[in-house]
Parts: sequence; C-alpha cells; structure tokens
Amino acid sequence: MSEFNTIARPSAHAGKLLENKTFFPDPPARGPLAPYRKQATIDWRKLKLSFHDETSLELQHRVWDFARKHPLFAHPNQTLTMDEERHLATKRMYVVQNEKMFTLSDFLERPDLATIYHQAWIAYEPSMAVKYSLGFGMFPSVIRTLDVGRLDEIVERNEKGEYLGAFGLTEIAHGTNAKGMRTTATYDPTAGVYILNTPDFEAAKCWIGNLGKTCTHLIVYAQLYTADGKHHGLNAFVVPVRDPNTLQAYPGVTVVSHPADNLLARTGDVNEQGEFVSPFKDPAKRFGASLGALSGGRISICGIANVYLTKAITIALRYSASRKQFGPDDAEDEWPVLEYQSQQFRLFPHLANNTVIRVFNLWFGKAYGDMQLKLLGGENIGATGMEVHALSSAAKPVCTWAARDGVQECREACGGHGYLKLSTIGDLRGNNDPNCTYEGENNVLIQQASNWLLSVRVKGYEKFAEVSPLGSAQFLAQYASLSKRKANWKSPSDAGSIANQLEALDWLVAYLLEESYQKMSTLRQQGKSSFEARNEVQSFFARTLSIAYGERMLLFVFAKFLANLEAGPERQALERLGSLYGAGTVLRHIGVFYQGGYFSTQSNAMALLQQSVLDLLPTIKRDAIAIVDAIAPPDFIINSPLGMNDGDVYRHMESAIMQAPEALERPKWWRDVVHRDYVQSKL
Amino acid sequence: MSEFNTIARPSAHAGKLLENKTFFPDPPARGPLAPYRKQATIDWRKLKLSFHDETSLELQHRVWDFARKHPLFAHPNQTLTMDEERHLATKRMYVVQNEKMFTLSDFLERPDLATIYHQAWIAYEPSMAVKYSLGFGMFPSVIRTLDVGRLDEIVERNEKGEYLGAFGLTEIAHGTNAKGMRTTATYDPTAGVYILNTPDFEAAKCWIGNLGKTCTHLIVYAQLYTADGKHHGLNAFVVPVRDPNTLQAYPGVTVVSHPADNLLARTGDVNEQGEFVSPFKDPAKRFGASLGALSGGRISICGIANVYLTKAITIALRYSASRKQFGPDDAEDEWPVLEYQSQQFRLFPHLANNTVIRVFNLWFGKAYGDMQLKLLGGENIGATGMEVHALSSAAKPVCTWAARDGVQECREACGGHGYLKLSTIGDLRGNNDPNCTYEGENNVLIQQASNWLLSVRVKGYEKFAEVSPLGSAQFLAQYASLSKRKANWKSPSDAGSIANQLEALDWLVAYLLEESYQKMSTLRQQGKSSFEARNEVQSFFARTLSIAYGERMLLFVFAKFLANLEAGPERQALERLGSLYGAGTVLRHIGVFYQGGYFSTQSNAMALLQQSVLDLLPTIKRDAIAIVDAIAPPDFIINSPLGMNDGDVYRHMESAIMQAPEALERPKWWRDVVHRDYVQSKL
Repeated sequence: MSEFNTIARPSAHAGKLLENKTFFPDPPARGPLAPYRKQATIDWRKLKLSFHDETSLELQHRVWDFARKHPLFAHPNQTLTMDEERHLATKRMYVVQNEKMFTLSDFLERPDLATIYHQAWIAYEPSMAVKYSLGFGMFPSVIRTLDVGRLDEIVERNEKGEYLGAFGLTEIAHGTNAKGMRTTATYDPTAGVYILNTPDFEAAKCWIGNLGKTCTHLIVYAQLYTADGKHHGLNAFVVPVRDPNTLQAYPGVTVVSHPADNLLARTGDVNEQGEFVSPFKDPAKRFGASLGALSGGRISICGIANVYLTKAITIALRYSASRKQFGPDDAEDEWPVLEYQSQQFRLFPHLANNTVIRVFNLWFGKAYGDMQLKLLGGENIGATGMEVHALSSAAKPVCTWAARDGVQECREACGGHGYLKLSTIGDLRGNNDPNCTYEGENNVLIQQASNWLLSVRVKGYEKFAEVSPLGSAQFLAQYASLSKRKANWKSPSDAGSIANQLEALDWLVAYLLEESYQKMSTLRQQGKSSFEARNEVQSFFARTLSIAYGERMLLFVFAKFLANLEAGPERQALERLGSLYGAGTVLRHIGVFYQGGYFSTQSNAMALLQQSVLDLLPTIKRDAIAIVDAIAPPDFIINSPLGMNDGDVYRHMESAIMQAPEALERPKWWRDVVHRDYVQSKL
Repeated sequence: MSEFNTIARPSAHAGKLLENKTFFPDPPARGPLAPYRKQATIDWRKLKLSFHDETSLELQHRVWDFARKHPLFAHPNQTLTMDEERHLATKRMYVVQNEKMFTLSDFLERPDLATIYHQAWIAYEPSMAVKYSLGFGMFPSVIRTLDVGRLDEIVERNEKGEYLGAFGLTEIAHGTNAKGMRTTATYDPTAGVYILNTPDFEAAKCWIGNLGKTCTHLIVYAQLYTADGKHHGLNAFVVPVRDPNTLQAYPGVTVVSHPADNLLARTGDVNEQGEFVSPFKDPAKRFGASLGALSGGRISICGIANVYLTKAITIALRYSASRKQFGPDDAEDEWPVLEYQSQQFRLFPHLANNTVIRVFNLWFGKAYGDMQLKLLGGENIGATGMEVHALSSAAKPVCTWAARDGVQECREACGGHGYLKLSTIGDLRGNNDPNCTYEGENNVLIQQASNWLLSVRVKGYEKFAEVSPLGSAQFLAQYASLSKRKANWKSPSDAGSIANQLEALDWLVAYLLEESYQKMSTLRQQGKSSFEARNEVQSFFARTLSIAYGERMLLFVFAKFLANLEAGPERQALERLGSLYGAGTVLRHIGVFYQGGYFSTQSNAMALLQQSVLDLLPTIKRDAIAIVDAIAPPDFIINSPLGMNDGDVYRHMESAIMQAPEALERPKWWRDVVHRDYVQSKL
C-alpha cells in the first residue's frame, strides 16, 4: 500500500515550525478550557503536525485568512432567504475563482493539496465551495478528460470566469440508475448538429448544481442516436444553456440544437458520415469510461463529510468542557458535563471516528492522486482502478454515515443550545445530508464493494493476492487459515489492542464474504436469476460485508499510520482513539462474532470489549480538549458561540443573541396579537 | 394493566361506519399505488378502526377539514422567514383558540381524545400547535393545578384570548438540572410583593415557548427567599411580562416586582407574617410535586414524535411504490424500488416501530388519563405514579429516537427528492429533533427508569410484584426462574413469534438489571460515592437497561392489544409488524443474549432471527400500501408531492416546482454573474 511519505513527522525542521504562532497560536490561558489544556499529556501542535506539513498548513491558513479579512466573506448575522444565500455564494465564488489560490500547476506539483484546499473552503461555507468546485473544478476537468481538443475555448473562457459550467447526469425520474436516463441526442448529418430532447418532465435534468440559476454551459449526458436510428448508449455533450451576456436561458432549453463538436468524444464520436465510432469495443466498458471521470467525487466526499464532523465534534467537546450541570452533593461547584461517563460515551466514539477517517482520507487522497498521475503519464495502473472503485464505494457510505450520526449526537449532546440556529450544528447536519445521497446513493453504491469481493471469491480466494495492491482485500488470500482463527483475549487491554481488533476484523470480512457467497449460491440453485439473487443477498449479508470491509480498511490504514509515527504521548493518544474505534466496530458486529464461533472459546469477549471502552474513556478525556485544539479550525471558521477557542460559551451567546436584529423589540405585527380582528372574520 | 376498552373493534356498528366516505374515502383506482392496493390481504378501513373509534375519527376530521378550508391555513408556497412563520403561527393560534373545538368538558368526558385533538394539529403544523398548547393548554392547566384560587381571573382572561401564557423553567446555564436554577424571588413583607431577580445572562430564562415575542404572562420558577434570608427551594410564580394592550415589555423585565398572590401556592405559600408555610414536610417531595404538574409532557411527546414518523413513513413508502429504478435484464419496465429487499429492509422496521408505538401511545395515554381522573377525584393512585414516571422516562427516549432514526432513513430512502424542501421530510426531522431534548434530555431522563428499577432491586426482586400495576416490571418478581431461561427455537418462525420474543426480552431486562446492580455494588465496594457509582454504571449497563425496559413494554402492550383484536387478516398484518419489531429489538441486543447464555444451547439463534426478518419482508410488502392508507392523514396534511394518496409523484413535483415564485426567471442579481465588478475591488 501507499506509504505516508508526504505526511510530515516531527523532525529537526518541525521544531522551528512548532514556534510559528500563525499556525499555532497560543490558546487562551484562562477560561473553562484552560484546566483541560493543563492536564493534557500531549502537545496539540505536535499532534497537528502528524496530519499536516508546512505547505498544507500554509495553504489552509491562506484560505481562512483571506475569508476572515474580505468583507464579502463576513458571516451574516441573520438567516438569509434562499435567493440571498445563492446570490452571496455566487459573488463569493467569483471572488475566489479570481484569486487563483490553487492552480493546475500547483496541483501537478502536490496533488494531495487539492483536498486541503477544497476542504478549507468547505469548512468555511459549503454552498460557495460546492458551486465553485462544480463550476470551475469538475466542469473543466471532465471536458479535459473526455474532449479530444475541440472544446479548448470553453475551458479557457471558463478559466477567465466568463463561462460557468454544470454537470448534468441526473434526471427527475432517474438518478441511481444512470443507464436509465431518457434524454436523447440525435445526430442530424445534414445540419451537422445534435438535437437534444427531453421527452417529458420526468426526463428533465434535475439536481444539477449551478444549473438552476447561473450556469452558461451544461455537460449533458444523453442517449446518442445516429440518423439511422441506432442507439449508442449514454454520451456526454457540452450544451450552452444561457447567454453569458444576459443570463437569459436560450430559447427551447428543453430542445437545444448545438454543434457536433460539443460531443465529448474521447470514448466515442460521430464521424462526417454520421456513423458512431469508438475506441472501445465493449459498450459496457465505454459506459464505464464515460462515467469514470467522476470517480474522485466519492473520495472527495469522504473528506467533506469529515470536515462537518470535525466542526461538530469541536463544538460539542468544547461546549461539554464549559457547560456545568449537577455534581456530587458535597461539591461546591457543578461538574463540567465532560466529566460524566455518559457524555464521554456519547462523544468520544465520534472523535475516534473523526480521527481514523481523517487519516484514511489523507492516505486515500494520496493513493488516488498517485493513480491519476500514472494514468496521465500513460502508465498501466493494473488492478488499482478496480480496487479504488470498490473501496471508495464502501468508504463513502461508512464516512458519510459516521458524519451523519456523529453530527446528530453532537447536536443532542449540546442540549437545547445545540438546537439553536446560531450553534450551526443544524447547518452541519443539513450540509452533510446530501453526501449520503449524491455521487451514488449510499445503499446502492455500497453494493459495488460486495459485488467486487464476490466476483473475486467466485474465482477463488487465492486471487485476492493479485487484485488488491492497496491492501483492502489482500488478506483474504489467506482465507483458509483466517476462517479458523479464534479470539484469545485474556484482558480488556487484549480486547483494546488494535492488532487484535484487526485480526478480528479480518476474520469478520472473510466470514461475511463466505456467508454472502454461500447464500447467493443457494439462491441461484433455487432457480433465482442473478439479478434476484443479488438483491436478496443484501440484508444482513452483502450489505454488512461491504460495511465491514470499509471499516476494517480504515483501521488497517490507521495502524500503518501509527507505525510510521514517532513514539511519544501524541502517538499514544492516537492509539487510544484507534483502539476505541476498533472496539466500537467489533461491538457493532458482536452477534456475527458469537454466531460465527470467533468467540467460541471465550463467551466473555463482549465484556472485555466493553471494559476496554470504559477504561479508555477517562484517559481520552484527559487529552480531549488538546486533541480538539489540533483539529479545530480557527474561531472565524467554527463560527459557533458554543465551540470557540476560549470556551466562553455564554458570553458569545449573549453577544450573538443581542446582535440579532430586533432582538429586543416587539414584533412589527404586534397588533395581530392585541386586536385579533382576523379571528372573527368567517369564511 | 389497563385494557383497551376504549379502542373500538369491528362490531355491528362498525359495518355501517366502514361505509362512511368522509372517514374512509375511496383511494384512487389508478396510478402507481393501485396494484399494491389490489394485492393487499387487508381492508385498510378495518385496520384504521383498530386504532380509532367514530368519535376520534370525527374529531380528527373536524380539525383537518377546518384547516383545509380556512384561508389562513393554506400552506405557503415558499419558505417563510422566521418572523413571517411566527406571525402566521400566532394568527392561526388565535383562530384555533377561538374555535373551542375541544373544551375542558369534552376532556372530562373523554380524556383520551385530548391526544387525538392535539396530534391532529401537530400533524397539520407544529409551530402553531406547540404555541397553542403551551399558551392555552399548559399555562392554565399549571395554574389550575398549583394555584389556590387566587389567580382565577388570569385563567379566565387567558380563556378569552386576552392573556397569552408561557412556562419559564429553563435558564441559559441550567436546563436538565432544574434544582440549579438561579433566578430568585425574595418576599418583601412591607410592600407585600416578591422581587424577582435574574442575577446575570446565564440565569436568564430561555427556551421558553411564546416568551420571546408574544406572551403576556410567564410562569417563572424561582428560588424563594423570605425576608429573613431563608431559602425555600424552587417555586412557581405568575409574572406579567408584557402589556396586553401594547405588547410592550414591562419596565425591568429582568427585575419584576409583582403581587404576593402570584405565587402558585398549592405546594407552599408565604403568609402575612412573611413566613413560608407548606403542606409538604419533605422539601424533596415539595420539589417533586411542584414539577409534577408537568409529567404528562413526556407522554405527549411520545405521541408527537410518532406523528412525524407517521408522515415520514407514509411519504417514503408511497414514494417507494411509485419510484422505479433498475430491473431484471429481461424486464420491459423498471421495478418500483419497494420491490427491492434492501428498500424493504430499510423502511419496514420503521413502519413496525411506528405501529407498535402507536398502540403503546393509545394505551399509555389512557392509563395516564385514568390516573389523572383518580387524582382529581382524590383517590389514592398507589404505585402507579412512580411507575408512570419511570416508564415515561424510558419511553420518551425510545419513541423520540425511533422517530429520529426513522425520519432520517425515510429521507435517505427517497434519495435526492427526499432532500428537497418541498418533500417536507427535512421539516419533520427538524420538528422531531427538540423532542429528544426538551421535557428531560433523553440521555439524562432515561436514568430515571434504571434508578427506579435499581431502587426496587435493592429491596429484593419479590418487591416488583407490588410496584408495577401497569405491568412494566411485574415480571421481574419471577427473577429466579427468569434468569435461568434459555431460548429454545427450532425455526425462523420460532424466532419471529412475539410470545418467544417477549420471553427473550423479559430475560434481557432481568439480566441487564442484575448486571447493573452487581456493577454498581462493586463500584460502591471500591469506595465510590453513590453519585460516582451511578454515573459510572451508565454506559453498557444502566442505560441499556432503561432502553430494554422501554422496548419490552412496547411489545408487551402490543401483544395485549393483539389479543383483544378480532381474528382476521388485519390482525395478522399487525402481528407481522409486531414480530418484525420484536426481532429487530432482540437483534439490537444480540451480544447480551449470547454473552449472558440465553443462546448457549443454540448458536444459530441470530441466523434464525435474521431469517425471520427476511421471511417477513415480502409478506409485509404485500400490505404495506394498505397499512399506510390506514395511518396516513389526508393529502392536505401530508403536504408532500412524494407522498400523496394517488402516488403521482412527478405530476405533483412538477406542479410544486412550477408554482414556486420566479421558478423560470433569471435571478434579480444576474448582473453580478455577468459583470462581476465586485471581484476586482480590492480590500
């Protein structure tokens, strides 16, 4: 698997970097968080440097500092209407686009920084960031990948900000089943144009970021027909939809004719004779390649989801350290709620998820970037492409659901104040929600991973040695010995050992794979079609298999990451989080371990796992606020009175509440309370 | 336990009722839902009558029909600002208040109809319904309960709509710990007034429905001090906060002086000599009684949460029957997504939860109403009060989390369209969210149930025979035999039997109680205080115990309900839902069953449970749309293009989208896209 060679580790140079107050400003010496910072066993700056190097810190700082200083980027102090929000996001997008803070040549030098840059904007405000990345990132990138040099002008004018793009695959009645799209493109050889047609409202392109109000060009996926009536599958076309000078939609946007050159022709083209020609002989492969340009999206979403979780867990943990409630009868003060086991039990698993996913994203982003560079250089990437497809199909659900559940728990853990609009946790939840649905609806997408595992299993377990260069499934080649493995834990710390947990998860994936395979075979023998059998093997089997496969890989990558870190309290703190993640993962699948016999020689395995979790909670608590310091963005980006660096929750709340317009006035419509003449007016 | 004697069962009269087209309008004969209605084994009208009688149907219909016809109650076709929403909710509230559709005398005749009435308004729109029930329900009811006849005028003017009330317990820095409130009320015997004082922002009353903008009177909970400096705990005062003629806040709302009569004096009073006198000798009991007026709130919330889940599951299942995606290679049409096992597996457990909770709420509402009537009649309610407290403390978390998870799954199961504002599922999620927090934050509240169980356990298991007239814990008196019980399931249908599942859940509660008790004892022996021991026994033990105790009672009540129903396909359909609920509940706790030895003679128990679930899914599918017809409110109340009675999703979406203001226009700020002069303006 790819090594973590771009992730900086403490070194001679790091010593100097640690003194940099721009990247490592001193936390407030007073206030409710100070005691927690004092009791920490770790240096938060060193911990931060295990996820960052100087360049990534600098880029992140540049983005956030730009936003903090630019007047257009000040946070509004009241809720905007959707139109106001769109307007503001659009203006901000053009300002950012004009800044060229991270260019194509920056990317070619350090592809891994693309996610740092993108996630910094996501952390600031996603509606701008998503508009920006669709319109000025994905749009030109898809054209560059699929065009054969005919549409360079569009890319150039996009780069100048004159054209804004959008990406149009989904229709009202088809999203998940991309092949089922009903928009057609029929080539008219006489005029040399394609006639694009959306037969009805159900086939209307929909859910297309930027399309609704602002884009000038849309990449339309349509079923291609040549004049002879032959169907050539789904192909991509660049269609001008609005006049860039007036932003008026072109006439007949439901039926648009446009020049033949606008077919993105790398995977297939229509020649002068009106015939379809393609370098791909197999239409299924052509379809795959035509959609292949999108495969980075899922990996990117894993990172975006974790940005929301980072903000939520920062807010919830700082709030928990500041908020006091109850206490022993003889105590003078109430306790910070972070002191309660039940609060630790609610929040620390999500801090652990956040950390393990953070490291996984760093690694996956790099592995994917390496693969892209090889592809661009014409190298053969062998089995990597398929493994990336399967792994990203499992990882996106695992990461986005982790964010969904984590953000929700953080909301609840902040009580009523977490429900306040100004806490921003509700927005984080709303922003993460579509991550579970777009770029492959999680429940459907996740089948891609089990489909791949099952297809290799059919050929024999030994094949796993060849198909998994990234290490997500290589271990399955040892199925024979794996399947006989049993737990041999003597103590809670055995149950908490990441190495032991990985052994258990290896077994789990192997067991679920074989169960799914056997269930599938039985269904086939009962006369079910492969379509039916695949559907009926999902619940409890293939679906759980995909999830376990993803969860195991997260811990596997984390263990490798730990092995590369310098020994010290920071590594220990990370180990504890990995251990909590591992114990939680095994506990979620506990029934399978018992039923499958992995615990057949020790029925107390669950109790050992539970005790390992309970033992971890107070040790993690000691460092929790320092860990948050290492991952939290600056206050301007956190933008929640509950989660500021000084922990001064009530002062920030008071100021936010009092600054709200008309906070202290009676409503303008007070007469409708006092007089109520509308009550008597009968129908 | 209370019998279901107010819930109508098919009878001679029911036959005529079934023909009533007002209550049972014929569903559309065509469209995507028609085939599902044809294949159903049940009569949806009969199913509906197992939850309703004629009077409750009539009341519900009256509310919904009133809303459908009154112009002020039309659904806005665009998102309102918060101020607009408040304004509209306020006007609607006064209109409803003026209608007197369900009066105190109606309540005294049929207390169980109070929830039908309230939930009908919740289903229509909760911001109005909550304002209404706080201001005109809870406010006068608390005064009636705690006043000694001095504040009748306030109640009367409230009834006329002249005064609007609010209920002020929570402060900025204290919610869960009610005893920790810092607002004080100091009696000044010279002037005969109380001086109420909020020392700082942290003690400001906050989160008080109606207080922000509209109420005239606030019930303030404050620490009472007499002139001699003595402290008499938390007491309730009625404080005028706004001039009812101008709605201007009175001067010094942070320090308000008001007449001595405004102390709600049933639990304690200050006499003419300025001394505190109370009928309660024990201050802890006085505090309990002072807050006791609120105990119906939790039960009410169980029902409200289920209303949101009802709407969400209606939308998701109708959408799933209408939405087509993929299909076998040889099929002409794509399949409705409801045909896929994975979609059934996602949604049916929430339909089962919804049904089991629906029945539980009917029963609990009735049991609580009976108890209230006894209290009003001066009868001794014995152990019931404590059991209601414990059970409602477990049931509120179980029911509101079920709604939280169910609504979220429904959102995801509708894909991108479920994320649309107009799907309304996002609003249902937002509306349910505070249910998890107010009237007792779930994670703290739930400790009340385990505290009670543990306190009885300390006295000995035989005591459970006396303390549980409602049946939530009576079975624990048989601990000795219970704890030796083991599963003896031969087939998936054994695992799916509700009777067997109840046996398993009885064992589970007993096992978790004993584990929690033993863990607690160990902690005490290690020298931990009772405060510490109680905190450290929560995770995995006491918390899980409370949840299992609540979940078991839900199934217990459901089994009793089934036993009272006439045999027939409707009862069978309900049995399947109960069985799915039971299997899911046992599966969630599967590790405990294995570890505790309940499955020690059959390691395949999990496989049997899983197979029972898989067997249930297609049989439930056959009736799913008819079940929805029995629980769904009319289209006007559903108000989601995804979930209408005709299943015509795309036509309703098209109409909703096209009717949105400016749907087809360029944005007003189009010049900011085309010209972008703000981009160059440097800082």
